[in-house]
Amino acid sequence: MSDPGEELHAHVRALFPLCRSITGAGLRDTLGYIARHIPLTVTEVPSGTAVLDWVVPPEWTVRGASILAMDGSTIIDFDRHTLHLLNYSAPFEGEVSRLDLEAHLHSLPAQPDLIPYVTSYYRRDWGFCLAHRDRLALGDARYRVRIDTELAPGSLSYGECVLPGEEEGEVLISAHSCHPSLANDNLSSIAVAIDLARILSARRRRFTWRFLFAPGTIGAICWLAANRDAAARIRHGLVLTCLGDPAPPSYKRSRRQDAPIDRYVEHVLRDEGFGERILPFTPTGYDERQFCSPGFDLPMGCLMRSPGGSFPEYHTSADTPDFVRPAALADSLRVLDRIATLIERDGIFASKAPYGEPQLGRRGLYDGAATAASRLALLWSLNLADGRHSLLDVAQRSGLAFAEVADATERLVAAGLVVQGSGTCVPDAGSSLSHPSSSRSAARHHQERTVPCAFS
Amino acid sequence: MSDPGEELHAHVRALFPLCRSITGAGLRDTLGYIARHIPLTVTEVPSGTAVLDWVVPPEWTVRGASILAMDGSTIIDFDRHTLHLLNYSAPFEGEVSRLDLEAHLHSLPAQPDLIPYVTSYYRRDWGFCLAHRDRLALGDARYRVRIDTELAPGSLSYGECVLPGEEEGEVLISAHSCHPSLANDNLSSIAVAIDLARILSARRRRFTWRFLFAPGTIGAICWLAANRDAAARIRHGLVLTCLGDPAPPSYKRSRRQDAPIDRYVEHVLRDEGFGERILPFTPTGYDERQFCSPGFDLPMGCLMRSPGGSFPEYHTSADTPDFVRPAALADSLRVLDRIATLIERDGIFASKAPYGEPQLGRRGLYDGAATAASRLALLWSLNLADGRHSLLDVAQRSGLAFAEVADATERLVAAGLVVQGSGTCVPDAGSSLSHPSSSRSAARHHQERTVPCAFS
Amino acid sequence: MSDPGEELHAHVRALFPLCRSITGAGLRDTLGYIARHIPLTVTEVPSGTAVLDWVVPPEWTVRGASILAMDGSTIIDFDRHTLHLLNYSAPFEGEVSRLDLEAHLHSLPAQPDLIPYVTSYYRRDWGFCLAHRDRLALGDARYRVRIDTELAPGSLSYGECVLPGEEEGEVLISAHSCHPSLANDNLSSIAVAIDLARILSARRRRFTWRFLFAPGTIGAICWLAANRDAAARIRHGLVLTCLGDPAPPSYKRSRRQDAPIDRYVEHVLRDEGFGERILPFTPTGYDERQFCSPGFDLPMGCLMRSPGGSFPEYHTSADTPDFVRPAALADSLRVLDRIATLIERDGIFASKAPYGEPQLGRRGLYDGAATAASRLALLWSLNLADGRHSLLDVAQRSGLAFAEVADATERLVAAGLVVQGSGTCVPDAGSSLSHPSSSRSAARHHQERTVPCAFS
Repeated sequence: MSDPGEELHAHVRALFPLCRSITGAGLRDTLGYIARHIPLTVTEVPSGTAVLDWVVPPEWTVRGASILAMDGSTIIDFDRHTLHLLNYSAPFEGEVSRLDLEAHLHSLPAQPDLIPYVTSYYRRDWGFCLAHRDRLALGDARYRVRIDTELAPGSLSYGECVLPGEEEGEVLISAHSCHPSLANDNLSSIAVAIDLARILSARRRRFTWRFLFAPGTIGAICWLAANRDAAARIRHGLVLTCLGDPAPPSYKRSRRQDAPIDRYVEHVLRDEGFGERILPFTPTGYDERQFCSPGFDLPMGCLMRSPGGSFPEYHTSADTPDFVRPAALADSLRVLDRIATLIERDGIFASKAPYGEPQLGRRGLYDGAATAASRLALLWSLNLADGRHSLLDVAQRSGLAFAEVADATERLVAAGLVVQGSGTCVPDAGSSLSHPSSSRSAARHHQERTVPCAFS
Repeated sequence: MSDPGEELHAHVRALFPLCRSITGAGLRDTLGYIARHIPLTVTEVPSGTAVLDWVVPPEWTVRGASILAMDGSTIIDFDRHTLHLLNYSAPFEGEVSRLDLEAHLHSLPAQPDLIPYVTSYYRRDWGFCLAHRDRLALGDARYRVRIDTELAPGSLSYGECVLPGEEEGEVLISAHSCHPSLANDNLSSIAVAIDLARILSARRRRFTWRFLFAPGTIGAICWLAANRDAAARIRHGLVLTCLGDPAPPSYKRSRRQDAPIDRYVEHVLRDEGFGERILPFTPTGYDERQFCSPGFDLPMGCLMRSPGGSFPEYHTSADTPDFVRPAALADSLRVLDRIATLIERDGIFASKAPYGEPQLGRRGLYDGAATAASRLALLWSLNLADGRHSLLDVAQRSGLAFAEVADATERLVAAGLVVQGSGTCVPDAGSSLSHPSSSRSAARHHQERTVPCAFS
Repeated sequence: MSDPGEELHAHVRALFPLCRSITGAGLRDTLGYIARHIPLTVTEVPSGTAVLDWVVPPEWTVRGASILAMDGSTIIDFDRHTLHLLNYSAPFEGEVSRLDLEAHLHSLPAQPDLIPYVTSYYRRDWGFCLAHRDRLALGDARYRVRIDTELAPGSLSYGECVLPGEEEGEVLISAHSCHPSLANDNLSSIAVAIDLARILSARRRRFTWRFLFAPGTIGAICWLAANRDAAARIRHGLVLTCLGDPAPPSYKRSRRQDAPIDRYVEHVLRDEGFGERILPFTPTGYDERQFCSPGFDLPMGCLMRSPGGSFPEYHTSADTPDFVRPAALADSLRVLDRIATLIERDGIFASKAPYGEPQLGRRGLYDGAATAASRLALLWSLNLADGRHSLLDVAQRSGLAFAEVADATERLVAAGLVVQGSGTCVPDAGSSLSHPSSSRSAARHHQERTVPCAFS
């Protein structure tokens, strides 16, 4: 398939039917599908393992579940929709009064046609989810309930795809993989992560990129408990969720609020015209709750389109592959690729000729610069090559495109005028004073001073 | 009396007739009245005592003062209004020409019916203050003047009410007590301070609260000169003035501009809808001039309703008990109590389970949290329990009410998940990025992810 | 001449005819003219000298240059306008076809009546600049070209006027002096610099003031290469350019963006009503490119009226003495003098009576203060005399005029209440909270509290 949107949507459709949970076959099959597209290492964490403040629960197995009328006719059947069964429901078999049954039913009075997604991982319970309209139609006095599930010692599974880089430091991309038949939340992000990994695997990489596919909360906690060293190497990271709905991209900042990753995503989203869709950090949402807990405080934000909880299809049977648009998936991948490029290209450089301006003409650097912007980028990159300013600082302070600045710096490195510095990005106080317009007029000015005019 | 406004107004009416000054019987009687309502320690500083850059002046005694026509009829009499006599007037007796008398009269041409309040503490002089209309009516060639006052060695008096607390650190509440028959400036604040002391004396207190009733400028200087140790213990403080007029509350920042007290009052006033009534520090006004002198630089701002000098009744015979409203006094006390609660409850905490989220459900903390806001408050309090963020930081960054955050933190302390940290409040850079609305949507989102829906 | 504008304009007219370049007689004669008005030390840097990343080029001598028709009639002649000859043109003599000639002509199709200013300092070439209209009129097949110039070993000249000061630290004022017959760029600034030097030479000076007249880029680089010690002593500096056109003053910040010089010029321009004409630093423009290279990073901005490149006359034969207005030159000198006064008067002071307010009345300081503003200035100057706040901080935080604050501080120094502190200016975080209006109301308030009212 050549259309990236169609290819991403095919992942969503293929994974939709599986009944995922925080453990079990559905999760394992999902990792198996991913492993057929990118190299994946799967880790199994045995039930009962203590992880940080938590304990890995027993593994959940589902063989079937239904509610039958006393005449044997089927009212609710897990085979019709994975959401019908309370996720992590304990097994149960028997005849119950409608009143007793009601205590085990979940529905949405405000959305009477939709089946809700409800879980009970840590409180042993059995139950069904159904459309409120169907619930109200339950008129019999007694029903037969059969929940053929198992909660037994087993393990929790998560998968990692690690693409080694040339420098120290890792980038972590995490997508929770525990939600059953829900397309936007979060098959959309699993799909985007798969194809981003494929794209990056074909590129020369500065950083090591680690893609984590784990069940929400407990899965992230398992990974953190077992990977404190890797966590300490993380330079930038993103939690991916809800990347397939029609809304424009949005971003929730890391706990640090101004980590480099926050500046990268903000730069791209502003450039895309969606600066107003940058949200402050909150300790709610997805696995940023774990990665941004005060002990780890990792520089990780959350990239989304519609934030979880903000769209009516959220956590219901309406979150189908049809709700997820190929074009939206492709756009998410494109935006993510722009962010990845910033992560890979940004850096801090130091001039080897910091006293006065080096003579660029003698080195043919002006001739090599076709446009006024590219000549300006040379001067800006040299002037701020002081071991303190990142290329993003240069771009923001100059009002030039990041790529223009990064290309100019590459030419200056090739000419031996600047060298890659070390250290992490220091936010540039001056950038707030930046003034694209005046920079451009300066560009024109500069051009006129140094370039013979037309006809020459 | 049960109505707090009436009770406060009763203090104002009771104190109004006394002829206060920076020394003398009127001041002493005022402290005596206060001592009948709250425990008060009175200090006498002898005349001639060197205090910082100043010297305590002789004590002023007034027995009477009048201007008589040559036929013996009374024109001006101190017994009619304490403002008629130039405050700190030297004694004088004799017959004077109208021209000589004019040199000793003070009036307000722009407010011809009002008697002005004028003092001459440090320049020996005699004089009268009167309505400009009455002044213009003086038609005789000569008058008899009799000022039966005394300026003799004595002492300056100030009073302190100290309510000990459980922790190190003091809170200083100061109200100048030298103005004669002026109700808003400053009997209103004396009244509010008396009742705040009564309220706090009945509570368990974290900090030691010290209430200072001293004459303006020289009294504050006397206290500072004698209490450098206590001054060094001051963590927060407020100068109280003009708390009885009908205007909404206002606040003048401390010299530091962003001391915790500034953030506390700003938080309360913004919440009350009066954020625009927060004024920058100026080295003018009341005793904040002394407390915020560069050598002491105490974290003390000034709480007011109408700032001194901004209302026409200011420093005139129109500043009567009628100008002061019971409802305004009661509102000032309520606002001050809100500020006191922030001072007492704010703190910095550290999580004992900072790696990943602790499992709240297992500890019954979710069941204990009735509302989405209280659940959110648990997550925010845990996430920012890093020994750097104060509870006010948490409230401002989360957009939650301070009380919600403080209550959640108390529950987390009880559950052994966080402990009170040390250190003072570090302003939270992130707070400027705080975004109540998005926090709330996150709250809804959070609720939907973790709580079984209706009917379950 | 008494009119400063006319005097400045006379400098421009006198210097206009000279054919300046980065070396040679025109530059030397320009320095000779300056030396007849202010003490000037001229330095000659031999051709071939390595300076930073550059090498001093051969010296350029022009005896004449013309394009003749084959019948001997003159088409273009250097004697008619110095701009006709490509600046730094190599010698050439011979008969050329129109096609060959075209390759050596420079004109402005968009401004067909103007002769452009074009240089070729570092690429050996010969050429002429002419009005595009005249260029299009060239109809013959062949022409005679005679360029009687010389590029031979010699030297580059620059001049310095140094006015010693009482304290450590220098102020550098730099005006490029290499442009030929161009009045605004940059004879206007040479003229203003001459007269500022004359004014300052007649004053008692705190800092050493150094005026540098050097060719652009290579001249500044020569000076920097030879004066690293002097460069290290520079506390403040300004590059002057285009100070004669009718536009209001404008300023380009130093690379540091918030150096004291940036705050001084911003303060003056805002006060003049031109705050919007303050531009961010860019590594383009004039010799700020060298002074603000990352290795030197000197606190130097660029003072202008119309920024170079922003007006149609820029770098053309339309930049004549008529384009430069006496009134604009005089206004530039006045604004520069205001900035010089801030530089000379600003400082940091420390109170010798920092605990409480010193008693000003006893010292007659209130009597010495005629206005409410001058009394306020005493209180503000004392309150912020903490060794951290500069007088500019005090002025900005109080909303008072800088002169008011500086005068008050002088009176406090005379009274022995404050002493000049050391250290450089610390930007005052509080100043952003400053609030002139409320300060003024505080002033009124203060006045009412301490001054007996009318008739007294």
